[in-house]
Amino acid sequence: MTSIEMIVAARARLRGEARRTPLLSSPFLDEMAGRRVLVKAECLQHTGSFKFRGGWSAVSGLAPEVRKRGVIAFSSGNHAQGVALAALRHDVPSVIVMPSDAPRLKIENTRALGAEVVLYDRAKEDRDAIGARIAGERGLTLVKPFDDALVIAGQGTVGLELAEQAEEEGVQAAEVLVPCGGGGLSAGIALALEASAPSLTLRTCEPEGFDDTARSLAAGKVVRNAALSGSICDAIVTPEPGKITFPILTRLAGAGIAVSDDEALRAMALAFKRLKIVVEPGGAVALAAALFHGKALESDTVIAVASGGNVDTDVFTAALQRFG
Amino acid sequence: MTSIEMIVAARARLRGEARRTPLLSSPFLDEMAGRRVLVKAECLQHTGSFKFRGGWSAVSGLAPEVRKRGVIAFSSGNHAQGVALAALRHDVPSVIVMPSDAPRLKIENTRALGAEVVLYDRAKEDRDAIGARIAGERGLTLVKPFDDALVIAGQGTVGLELAEQAEEEGVQAAEVLVPCGGGGLSAGIALALEASAPSLTLRTCEPEGFDDTARSLAAGKVVRNAALSGSICDAIVTPEPGKITFPILTRLAGAGIAVSDDEALRAMALAFKRLKIVVEPGGAVALAAALFHGKALESDTVIAVASGGNVDTDVFTAALQRFG
Repeated sequence: MTSIEMIVAARARLRGEARRTPLLSSPFLDEMAGRRVLVKAECLQHTGSFKFRGGWSAVSGLAPEVRKRGVIAFSSGNHAQGVALAALRHDVPSVIVMPSDAPRLKIENTRALGAEVVLYDRAKEDRDAIGARIAGERGLTLVKPFDDALVIAGQGTVGLELAEQAEEEGVQAAEVLVPCGGGGLSAGIALALEASAPSLTLRTCEPEGFDDTARSLAAGKVVRNAALSGSICDAIVTPEPGKITFPILTRLAGAGIAVSDDEALRAMALAFKRLKIVVEPGGAVALAAALFHGKALESDTVIAVASGGNVDTDVFTAALQRFG
Repeated sequence: MTSIEMIVAARARLRGEARRTPLLSSPFLDEMAGRRVLVKAECLQHTGSFKFRGGWSAVSGLAPEVRKRGVIAFSSGNHAQGVALAALRHDVPSVIVMPSDAPRLKIENTRALGAEVVLYDRAKEDRDAIGARIAGERGLTLVKPFDDALVIAGQGTVGLELAEQAEEEGVQAAEVLVPCGGGGLSAGIALALEASAPSLTLRTCEPEGFDDTARSLAAGKVVRNAALSGSICDAIVTPEPGKITFPILTRLAGAGIAVSDDEALRAMALAFKRLKIVVEPGGAVALAAALFHGKALESDTVIAVASGGNVDTDVFTAALQRFG
C-alpha cells in the first residue's frame, strides 16, 4: 500500500532524473472557463508522459540484485516507454510485451529506448502466459501500469510538485483535475495532496462511455465499462478501476467527471494555441473538464494535469483543423 | 548600454512574473544531431514568446510617473503581445500600432490583452509619424523591439536562467544557439553568459537570405538584407542588425548560422514529436541549426533556444504533414 513516505522516497530517487514540469496558464483560458485555470504540463516529462515517474520509481526501488536481472511490462503505449527509459538509464535490461498490431512507430520508439520488444498475436496468444514464461526464465520483475505501490508512489510525485507550485502561485484552495485510466496517477496525486496540501482536492476525469471510475465512485463499488475500446482517448481506457487505486480514490477523490471525445480534441487545440504544448487526447480530458464542465466544478481555481503528449500527427492535425 | 547589472536588475523585476521555462531534451534528438541537444523552451513563456521578458523589463523599469501615462509599440507580432500584457499587469495603458492588413487573430489577441490597437495603411500612411503623434499627445513611452537597453536586459534574463540550468545539467561548455532578428535576445543572452557562464558561447541563427547578422559579423560591419520579406520565419526577418545589439554581438558572438525554411519546418515537426512543444518557424531556427548544421558546430553539447510558439494552425499542420 502506497504511503506518503513512499511518495517522498520516490521523489528523492527521481531527483535529477524526472523533470519538474511547469505550471502553465493563459488569460484566454481563464476567461473561457470563468475561473483561474492552471495546467500542470506533464506532457513535457521524459518520454512525453508522467509514466516515466512511475517507471523510474519502480526500477529504482528494486533491490540491486533483483534490478540487475531486468524488468518486464505489458504495454503498447506510454507505460512501455516510461519503463524502457528507466531501465536504460539504470543500465538493466527491459522486455516490453506488445501486441503485434501495435503502431510501428510505438514499437520502434520502445526499441530505440533500449527495450527488447516481444510481439504476440492478440487473437491467438495469451499475453500473460508469454510474459510469465519470459519473466520466469530470466528472473525479470513485472512492472504493472497502475496497481503497483512503487508505481503509484512515482506518479504521486506529480502531486508533491503541484502542491509546491500551487503555493508559489498563491493558490489557497483548488480542485485538481486528473486524467484517469487505471487510477495510478490519480491515486498517487490524491495521497500526496492529502499529506502536503489538503485544501487541494482531487477530481478524476475520463472519456464519456469509459467513466468506470466516476461510476464506481458514485456506486461505492467497482463498476466495469460496457466497452473496452471506442474512445479517441485510448491511453486512459481501462475496463475498471484498479484494486489498489480504487480504495484510495474512494477515500480521497470528489465526484468524477466525464468529457466527450470532441471536448478532449477541442482542449488539445486550445492547449496548442494558448499554452504551446502538445497534449494527447487522453491527456487533455482534465483540461476539457476545466474548460467545458464548469458547472461540475466548485473552486475559483482549478489545476488540470495534462498527463501526456504522445499523439499521432494525423490525430493532432485533425484536432487543429476542426477546432483550431 | 545594457550591462550585466541591468540584466540582474531585470531578473529581480521579473521574479514571479516571467516563467522559468524548462530545458528539454530527447535521446532521439541527441542521436540525430550526434551530440547532446538541450532546448530552452521559451515558447512556454507568457504570451508564447520571450518578448514578454523585454516588455516587462521596459515597463517595470520606467519611473512610476512616466509609466502611468502608458507605453506604445509598433508590432504586429510577439513584441506587441509582450508589451500589452506587461502594461496590463502594471495597470497602465498601452497602444500598439499595427498595419491594417495584420492577421485578424493577432489584432484580436492584442486587444484581448488590454491594448488599444491603432491600425494604419501600410501603403499610404507613415507608421512612425502616427506613433510619434499619439505618443506626443498622450505622453506615452515608446518600447522598441530590440534597440532598447531595458528590453535587451529583459531578454538577457533568458541567459541567466540558461546558465543556471546548464550547470544543473552538468554542462561544462556549450554553444548556445539563438534565433536572431534584430538581435535583442541574442545580445541579452550574450551579455548574461559573458558574466555568468563564459564557457557557454553564443551563436546567432537566421533564415537563409535573411542572415544579415551572420553576414555583418563576418564582414565586421553592418550589412543589410536584399529582401525584407519572403521567409516563413517572419518573426525574425529584419533589414539589418540593431545599433545597440550589433556591437555586443561583434564582441561576443561566434559565426552566425543560416538555415532553410524547410529545415525550420522540419525542426518544428521534431519539436512536436520529441519535445511536445509548439514552436513557430522563426523560433525553430536554432533547433534546426543544432539538428541539421552539425558541421558548423564545435561543442559536444548545444543549447538551442526555442524562442516562440505563435504559429498559425495552417502553417503548423502543413509542417506536420510534410515532415511529421
